Parts: sequence; C-alpha cells; structure tokens
Amino acid sequence: MDDFLSACRLCVGHANVLTAEQDKTPYETEWRRRVQGKALAVIRPGNTNEVAAIVALCLAHRVPIVPQGGNTGLVIGSIPDQQGRAIILSLRRMTQIRAVDAGNFTLVAEAGCTLAQVQQAADAAGLLFPLSLASEGSCTIGGNLASNAGGTAVLRYGNARELCLGLEVVCANGQIWHGLSGLRKDNTGYDLRQLYIGSEGTLGIITAAVLKLYPKPAAQKTAWLALESPQQALQILRAASQALGAMLTTFELMADICLQLVLQHIPGSTPPLAQPAPYYILLELSDQESEQHANVAMEQLLQHLFEAGLISDAVIAVSLQQARQLWSLRENISMAQAAKGKNLKHDISVPISAIPAFITQTNALLQQHFPACQVVCFGHMGDGNLHYNVSPPSDNQDAFFAAEKQITTLVHDQVQLFHGSISAEHGIGAMKRADLAKYTSPTDMLLMRTIKQALDPLDIMNPGKIL
Amino acid sequence: MDDFLSACRLCVGHANVLTAEQDKTPYETEWRRRVQGKALAVIRPGNTNEVAAIVALCLAHRVPIVPQGGNTGLVIGSIPDQQGRAIILSLRRMTQIRAVDAGNFTLVAEAGCTLAQVQQAADAAGLLFPLSLASEGSCTIGGNLASNAGGTAVLRYGNARELCLGLEVVCANGQIWHGLSGLRKDNTGYDLRQLYIGSEGTLGIITAAVLKLYPKPAAQKTAWLALESPQQALQILRAASQALGAMLTTFELMADICLQLVLQHIPGSTPPLAQPAPYYILLELSDQESEQHANVAMEQLLQHLFEAGLISDAVIAVSLQQARQLWSLRENISMAQAAKGKNLKHDISVPISAIPAFITQTNALLQQHFPACQVVCFGHMGDGNLHYNVSPPSDNQDAFFAAEKQITTLVHDQVQLFHGSISAEHGIGAMKRADLAKYTSPTDMLLMRTIKQALDPLDIMNPGKIL
Repeated sequence: MDDFLSACRLCVGHANVLTAEQDKTPYETEWRRRVQGKALAVIRPGNTNEVAAIVALCLAHRVPIVPQGGNTGLVIGSIPDQQGRAIILSLRRMTQIRAVDAGNFTLVAEAGCTLAQVQQAADAAGLLFPLSLASEGSCTIGGNLASNAGGTAVLRYGNARELCLGLEVVCANGQIWHGLSGLRKDNTGYDLRQLYIGSEGTLGIITAAVLKLYPKPAAQKTAWLALESPQQALQILRAASQALGAMLTTFELMADICLQLVLQHIPGSTPPLAQPAPYYILLELSDQESEQHANVAMEQLLQHLFEAGLISDAVIAVSLQQARQLWSLRENISMAQAAKGKNLKHDISVPISAIPAFITQTNALLQQHFPACQVVCFGHMGDGNLHYNVSPPSDNQDAFFAAEKQITTLVHDQVQLFHGSISAEHGIGAMKRADLAKYTSPTDMLLMRTIKQALDPLDIMNPGKIL
Repeated sequence: MDDFLSACRLCVGHANVLTAEQDKTPYETEWRRRVQGKALAVIRPGNTNEVAAIVALCLAHRVPIVPQGGNTGLVIGSIPDQQGRAIILSLRRMTQIRAVDAGNFTLVAEAGCTLAQVQQAADAAGLLFPLSLASEGSCTIGGNLASNAGGTAVLRYGNARELCLGLEVVCANGQIWHGLSGLRKDNTGYDLRQLYIGSEGTLGIITAAVLKLYPKPAAQKTAWLALESPQQALQILRAASQALGAMLTTFELMADICLQLVLQHIPGSTPPLAQPAPYYILLELSDQESEQHANVAMEQLLQHLFEAGLISDAVIAVSLQQARQLWSLRENISMAQAAKGKNLKHDISVPISAIPAFITQTNALLQQHFPACQVVCFGHMGDGNLHYNVSPPSDNQDAFFAAEKQITTLVHDQVQLFHGSISAEHGIGAMKRADLAKYTSPTDMLLMRTIKQALDPLDIMNPGKIL
C-alpha cells in the first residue's frame, strides 16, 4: 500500500493524503457517533481530474473508495467498515460555484459546496434554490444528490433528484462523465443522471451538478392548525391543494406528544394555541404576488377549514419572528425527543391517502405488543413521509430496547402492508442494507445487482452500502 | 418459427397473433408513412402475465421484440426493421385504469390507455393529469413514458418522467418488476423507474404506471404578445416567472413566418393583432383562485411588459373560444408548413439563456450556406426547446433537399456548440441513432451500452433503437 499512497501523494499533494490517526478520525466517525469506521487514508482531491486520477489508482491497487461530503448522513453511508482497506475520498475541497446562469435558472456547483453555500449563490442571483434541510450548513450538495435528499420543500419543489438538471461524475471505471447539461428537455438515450442520483456513491463519484433555480416568492405565510385526527389532515391537505395549488409549500403533521416534548425540553418554547389538540399541522404558503395577497389566501383557507369543521383552532404568524417560532416547534421535535432519552427512529413513507390508517393501526399494534411505549409521529405529510419514532415506556426501558429488532420489524412490516418505503428520505447506507434485501422483491434486487456489477465490476465504489 | 407462433397463440389466443399481411400493415407502418417495417407477427397480449409469457417465448426462440403503443412516435422507434424477424408487441389491449386514489393524487393506468383516456380519468376524479400533446387521442401512456414525452405543459409540470411515481415493467429477462409505487419519497436503492422511462423499449416493456395528479386550476388566461426579438423573449420569461411563479403554464415563442404560414394555409385563421411583429409569444397562466384574479394577474403582467418596453402589442383572450383560436395559431404551424411543402425538422434544445444567440447565429449560418432557405422557428421557449424547421427556397428545391445532411449537420453542430440536445422531446429511435453516436461522448455511449448489455444481454428488446 506504500506505493499506492505515494502515488496518491504525487497526485493530490502530501497535505491531502491523511494517514495519521488523529487526522483521519473526524472523517471516520459517523456524526451521531454511533459507529466509527477505519480508513487506510483520507484523500482530499482538489478538482475532478484529481478525483479521476485517484479512482484510477484505486482500480489499479484494488482499493475500495468511500466518497464523503459533509458526513452528515443518517444511514452510515459515508464511512468505511472496520477493515482499514478503503480510502475515504473527501470532496470537501471542491467548493467552487462554477457558473450562475440566471437566464437559464441554473447554477453549476462542485460537489463539496455546502447546501447553504448553494442557497446563498442562488440568492445572490435573485433566485431561490429550494432544497432545505436541518444540516444545510454542513451537508454538501454532492452528498445531497448521492442520497437524493428530501427536506421541507419537497411538496412544492421535489427531492434533490427533481432539482438537478445535469451531473459530472467520475465513474467506477475512472472515466469522467461530462453530463453537466443545463437542459430541461433532453431525450438522447438513458437518463444516466437519474441512475447516479440516489446511488449513494456505489456507482461513481458526483463531482459537480447543474441545479435548478426558481423565482423567489414575494411573501410567505406560516400557520399552525389544531385538528382531531390524521383523517382530517388528509381532508385539509386536499382542500389546501385545491385552494393554493403550487403556493402550498409546507404541510407538516405532528401528534400532540411532539409539541409537548418540545415545550418540556426546549427552553424558550411556548404553546402556539390556548388549548392542546390531538394533532397539529404546520402549513406554509409562498406567494409570488404580495404580502397582502398571501394574507388573504391564508385567511380564506383557514376560514373554509373552520366552516368545514376540519380544524378547531389556528394561528397565523404575523411576523417573521413568529413564523420562526412555529417552525422551531416542528424542527426541535427530534432534539426534544433526544433530550428525553434514546428512541427508535423510522424514516418511512406510505401513499398519502394511507397515512390515517397506517398511524391508527400501527399505533394500536405497538401498544398491544409493547405496552406503554410512546409513539412520537410527525413528518412531511404532503409527501407521505413520516418520522415514526418510538420511545420506551418510563419504566422497563431495558426490555424495550432489547426488543428493538421486533419493534422495527413491526413498523416496517406495516409499511410493507401499506405499500410504503422503509427509507423515505435518508437512504440505505450500511444501516438498512439487510432490511432492503428483506423488503425488496428478488426481481428488484436482481436488477440493482446487475447494474452495480455492470458499472462497478470490481466493487470498489462504496462497497457494503445499499447492496 | 411455427413452434414459436403456436406457443404465442396458446398464450394470447389465435385472434391476437396477427400474421396476415393486411392485418400487420397498420402496425408496421410509421404514421407519417416515411418507413414501413416488416414483422414476423403482431402479438397483442391482454395483460401483464401474457406480456411476460410472450417475452419468455421470445427469449427462448431468440425473437426480437418491438414494443408498440399508439405508434405515433416521430423517430421510427416503434416499428421493426426490414428483416421480418421481430414481433411487434402491441400494448393496445391493455387499457384498464386500474385505480384512482384522489387522496394520494395518483392513478394507475395500463400502458395501452391513450393519453386522453388518462386525462379523462383524472378529470372524473376532480383532478388534472397535465401531460398534453397533439396526438393525445391516439398515443398511449406506455409510449409517452417509454419516450419521456414533453408537450405543452412541461414548463409547469415537467416531462412524462416527472409525472410518473412508479412502473410495472416486463424486464428483458422475462421477469415482472412490480414497481407500482405511489410514493413521493422512496430512497431504497437505484431508481429503476427512471432508467426505464425514456429508454424507448430497449430495456423492457412498461405495462402499467402510477401517475401524478394535480388540483385543477380555477381559471386559465391566454395571451398573445408581439415583440422584437428572442432577446426580449428571454427578458419577458424572467419577468413572467417572477410575477407568476408556478402560475405560468405556457410560454411558446414563434417567429412571424410561423404566423404568416398559418394565416396563409389554414382556413379560418385570423391575425390576432393589427400589425405583424418579428416574434410572438403565446403565454398562458393557470390560477387556483378565480377568473377575476387570473385576469388581474395577466393584466398587471402585460402592463409591466409594456412599460418596460418589452412588448409592442398584446391581446388577452376573453373567452374560451378566443383562447382556442390563439392556441390553434400555435398548434397549426407544423400543418401549415407541411401544406406549403416538405421541410427539414429539428427537435432541439439549448439552455434557455442561449436561445437568442442560437437563433441569431444559426439563422445567419444557414442563410450564408443555403441562401434563401426559410427558417420556421417556434417552440417551448420556457423549456429551452425549439422546433427549428428549415424550408427550401421557392426555387431550386432539389439542390436544397440534396443538401439535407449538410443542413442538419449545420444545425446539430450549432446545438452542440451551445451545449444543447439534438433530441429534446422526440427521442432517438432508429432515426437519430447515428447522430446520437456522433454527438455523444464515448464515455456516455459506453455507460449506455454497458447498461443495455447488462439488462438485455441477448439484445432482444427493440434492437437497433437508440444504440
């Protein structure tokens, strides 16, 4: 391996081949500190040609490659296993915004740009890059695309997949695929871009992307709605979609327990309404026209929902500060739950119309088999995506966590029953690999393995992830 | 082959294995009658299991398969070559709308449903399926997806690709991939759906699809704008996007020659404005709110464009009938040009911002090399997609058509120079196969060939198309 590392140093410079333990550790450590992998070295190329040269060296020396962006993923997809044979190929030095083309509503970003940096570049051009997630200050756009990130604006703008018009990729054979097309229509053969997006670095390394930009809204209005049940939420979603169309940009559902956890554990939180209710919706609309038009649209919608008996109470934020407070109630749920203690998380999706039945039946089954467990259910209802987390009962926590596998199996079996997905937005990585094989049809697995084998016959691209 | 045909008859019934010349001819003939292929037989399975059984028989007997929907494609993708070895597998008997789920904003349609049938099923559920194209009465949704159809609503709703959440496919190995997911978020491995969409039947046969539905707009307003140049069109697009956001659903650019051809050749056509102008835009907005709000939005936009000096005249349709008249001026361009005589068509796209320079430079080059030829340029400017057609000079037509290859090469070379696509929405088929290889990088071709080889090693799925 000394020859290999020497060649890497020649290629990217001594300073960018990290082999000392203390230098490698931050890259080897999963950010929630659940796992630490072991890398032969961390290699930090500065441009696409250097990435290609490193891949060529890895092919020649049969060294596995784990591509890494911001290392903020949730499924152990960006760190190596324990063997110490793989390199971590960090894209974090590739941080150029290569071009902004406001007339084409696009920009070209290198893989190592943080999501926040991309958002800022769009903003500076008077436009919006709508992808938005909790880790946007540290996650990278390359990682967002490799994992097809979701976030809070999917309902209106789609996942990362829908926001990308073209890619530059260093393929598993070491060749550079120059696919940085800025076209909205291009029917010249297979859509390779879509194959690399969401493939979690197992088919190649995304080094740059053309991203879609949108006009900035003139106004945004945020409201907090109190309701009885997910069934009502479904009716509210239908009514809001009909009234607002593409103006509807957020539709987040929460059970009351989520709000109570935040009020209890996050200092400075205040209840948005006088009385608690079984469920809440955080609803946001974006308006191209004016603050006034946005106000009227929101007021008319809420009036309609009251009259239809679908909501019992509601508040509209009258300032940006109030809007942020409502958002923070939603965004702090995970942190509040963590403050209370360990819990079991499930990032799942089902057809939107199946959400009420899924919640009712799964809650009941969990209570039946694991009495007094606490379901903390919230998520992007407009996308059919729930974060269906389960906390232990206040006593007998050890028995609960000993049954972790049974609990997750119960939830995932329910997801399968409702034709849903066991990984809505986080991906598979190493963490859900066994579950993928369990819940995916043999035909589907065969197709995926065939593609992997064809494009990466030596299995050097992020081995042990997904497949 | 008698054994093979007997087995096919056992599988789908005698009546659905067509071998008589007069029965096969309509399926073998390209609809613009430019080419006629030769099929061993036309086989019409009635359900997915029958499709899979026929594919298995074709594999066993090494019989190539040409999948066919409405046979309305424009690139000779749905008919076989002259050898008479291939079967045409017609999906037209599979016409069930299997399910409508208004709460999930989806429906499940079999491949042989016409696009109009899908639109009607959505409409009956109070929702909109926005894909719309000239041949919607006879093209099938399976063909739309296999060719990633575009049409007139791409600016707002995307191509066929963006309107599909899941697929059922009979793979080239004869297995059925049950991918009829109705999920907006599903990050469980490679997105196989995206690989089959746009692959023109070369990787498998789409037998059913889950399609995305949208709320119906409350009102639509259509306007016809007069302007000086594509450069102004670019500024108008930016202003309209900023003012209308997702309300902007159509932005079609036409040179004056397009209007003049329609007025001259299509009976009943009347000029929309008192004076001709060098260019026109057909602009439509869709409003979730009300007719009145739509009116105000359109009037305010046009007033802004007048004041900014971007348009010289405009008319807003005040009735559905007037709107249809404006649309017919746009939709009849191809027919008017055909009435005048044969011409050379180019379905191309470039980045939206490059459209003005592309048109100016390419027009000039054509005039320089092929004096007095007539460029009939129109298209979906909001998507960067131009139908850049070239008609012969009034005299010396023979010399013009003798230079067909040079003219198309000139146009496609210009497309390449502007980082565009030589097939924006029609696909490759057999017609543009040589051009694909010419204008696509070796890396891109290698990736596509590797995928084809891996998924269809016997090359029985629509051989000779795309690759």
